[in-house]
Amino acid sequence: MHIKINDLKRFCVIMLETVGVKGIDAATTADALTTADAWGIFTHGTKLLAGYLPRLRAGGWNAKGKPRVDREGPAWSIVDGDHALGQVGGVFAMRRAMAIARNSGLAYVGLKNTGHIGAAGYFASLAAGEGMIGVAMGNDIPSVAAPNSRGAVLGSNPIAYAIPAGERDPILLDMATAAVAGGKVYAAWQRGEPIPPTWIVGPDGKPTTDGSLYPAHASLAPMAGHKGFGLGLLVETLAGLLTCGAVTWRVGSWLFDDPALPTRHNAAFLAIDVATIAPHDEFSARVAALIDEIHETPKAEGAERIFVPGEMEWERRRKAIAEGIDLPPDVRDKLKSIVKDLQLSDSWINEIVVDYFSNRNQL
Amino acid sequence: MHIKINDLKRFCVIMLETVGVKGIDAATTADALTTADAWGIFTHGTKLLAGYLPRLRAGGWNAKGKPRVDREGPAWSIVDGDHALGQVGGVFAMRRAMAIARNSGLAYVGLKNTGHIGAAGYFASLAAGEGMIGVAMGNDIPSVAAPNSRGAVLGSNPIAYAIPAGERDPILLDMATAAVAGGKVYAAWQRGEPIPPTWIVGPDGKPTTDGSLYPAHASLAPMAGHKGFGLGLLVETLAGLLTCGAVTWRVGSWLFDDPALPTRHNAAFLAIDVATIAPHDEFSARVAALIDEIHETPKAEGAERIFVPGEMEWERRRKAIAEGIDLPPDVRDKLKSIVKDLQLSDSWINEIVVDYFSNRNQL
Repeated sequence: MHIKINDLKRFCVIMLETVGVKGIDAATTADALTTADAWGIFTHGTKLLAGYLPRLRAGGWNAKGKPRVDREGPAWSIVDGDHALGQVGGVFAMRRAMAIARNSGLAYVGLKNTGHIGAAGYFASLAAGEGMIGVAMGNDIPSVAAPNSRGAVLGSNPIAYAIPAGERDPILLDMATAAVAGGKVYAAWQRGEPIPPTWIVGPDGKPTTDGSLYPAHASLAPMAGHKGFGLGLLVETLAGLLTCGAVTWRVGSWLFDDPALPTRHNAAFLAIDVATIAPHDEFSARVAALIDEIHETPKAEGAERIFVPGEMEWERRRKAIAEGIDLPPDVRDKLKSIVKDLQLSDSWINEIVVDYFSNRNQL
Repeated sequence: MHIKINDLKRFCVIMLETVGVKGIDAATTADALTTADAWGIFTHGTKLLAGYLPRLRAGGWNAKGKPRVDREGPAWSIVDGDHALGQVGGVFAMRRAMAIARNSGLAYVGLKNTGHIGAAGYFASLAAGEGMIGVAMGNDIPSVAAPNSRGAVLGSNPIAYAIPAGERDPILLDMATAAVAGGKVYAAWQRGEPIPPTWIVGPDGKPTTDGSLYPAHASLAPMAGHKGFGLGLLVETLAGLLTCGAVTWRVGSWLFDDPALPTRHNAAFLAIDVATIAPHDEFSARVAALIDEIHETPKAEGAERIFVPGEMEWERRRKAIAEGIDLPPDVRDKLKSIVKDLQLSDSWINEIVVDYFSNRNQL
């Protein structure tokens, strides 16, 4: 059973408005969350509302928060997120980067004191949508070990980028600097499966296949050992240090900490205006030719296709636009529990959303 | 047996001048190569001269090449490397980035038509030496497979960064986007050892432990699968496409191709002037505190230290400054063969270098 993207978006807007987020900010956040769902990245889609709404209601995040420029130069800006939703701060910051890049060719914008930004790739894709190369990254409370550590040192500190490709879908990568997302460890544990020894390190700091240890007694392994740890440290620097924001354990957990407290997340964005630096059409044609070249490379035995980053996500999104999104059971459960918690009786919710999320449909 | 850094540097300068590189450019290149050796990164040190000198002599690289700004804006520049040594082009480009960043806060500089840049971390460290965050990356002839491909698609496309830390050594990461450097595959094969199944993919595109297949019948695996492939593609874009330079197979092999042909390597540099964007002393203090925090994290069972990126390299360099560099046998062999090939009889070489590299010392 599928839900239309616009219905899901309206659902998000209503939920967010219920806890005091104003319409334009609710719409921004709804677009970010439903885009992640449409890409099939359900860990970073509307499911996040289950953690976001209680924190907005309790005041830890500022439902009425207004991100503002703190200080700025010819090719950079530092934005204070005013503890608003990370999607609101992130879109403000990426749009600021794009505006500066239109004059300067490129821009760095750091965002401090914000909420959890969700899918970093969403912000990168905004830049690509206007012909720019976009890069987005964010820090978070530690969950990832360093090589040789037994405890978590850095957050899963994602890095995402998007490259415009003319008429084609942008190239789009969104990766954690951890070996694997924490959500995958949970999922394997819920299915009662052991996990590969490369995913987490146990209480002794050694690899373990027992997913039940995470997160209380285990940390995620860094992606590719010292390389992922090193990239995570660059994210921590550009998002947390250069902005004068919080780093490591001074960042709160958006899910587990007292919802009355801010989380002090931070993020960093780069925008590069292709048309300022290179002949735009030639660049687009060469990106397209590179994609073709990758597609046409001889395939490994048994492999059907070679994908460029983001290709699967854009295909899923096209399908979602045409057919609606088939939300997985864990997401539907979360959204149902939100409707119940908020004790909503809005008629639109009853007609469209509750209908979709109700037990009548055997969800 | 150790050689003094300055003696090794003089050796490099003389070798480079012998093939027509002028003094200042020879000194720049010598500094880059000996710094890599002092860091213990011998795969990217003076050993490279064995491939560089024949190409300079044959004219594929332009010994008299002068990198020049092709086009430029308020926060960016595209430099044509004039097929000079990659170290010469890379230092020119990074210094241009630093000069622009001093005004604009940050800068991107793309470098096209250059030689092989060697250790990308060298250029990043130049920026850190002047209080800037430096990022350096470069493309190369394909040697790395994509997920699902059986052939190479991208070069090992390194990414390096350096973060200044006040009085401390900069944080410094220099990583290939391949799972492992090709040199490590050779070394294991020379020792007759099987390699881990994560390093290369064989002629069928599947993992193999037979290192003898590389490079003729195997490609390097991308680091962490689609993540390393995705980062390599970002490097290809910023170094090769945004500069209007060559990509993938249009880049030549500096080691195997006809030395009379240019290689058309490309690179990209970012410089971020910390003091423009953040209070400099506070930033330095917070980087130092973050390093301390990482060091003090509880260690895994059996682990003695937790290193921040670059820490091992700076310690090796300090030792090399005090005691000289203990070049490994393969590097000594390469340097001996260079002296022989060039038929040099310079008295300084005889006195200092040939003495070091001669058989009398049982090397």
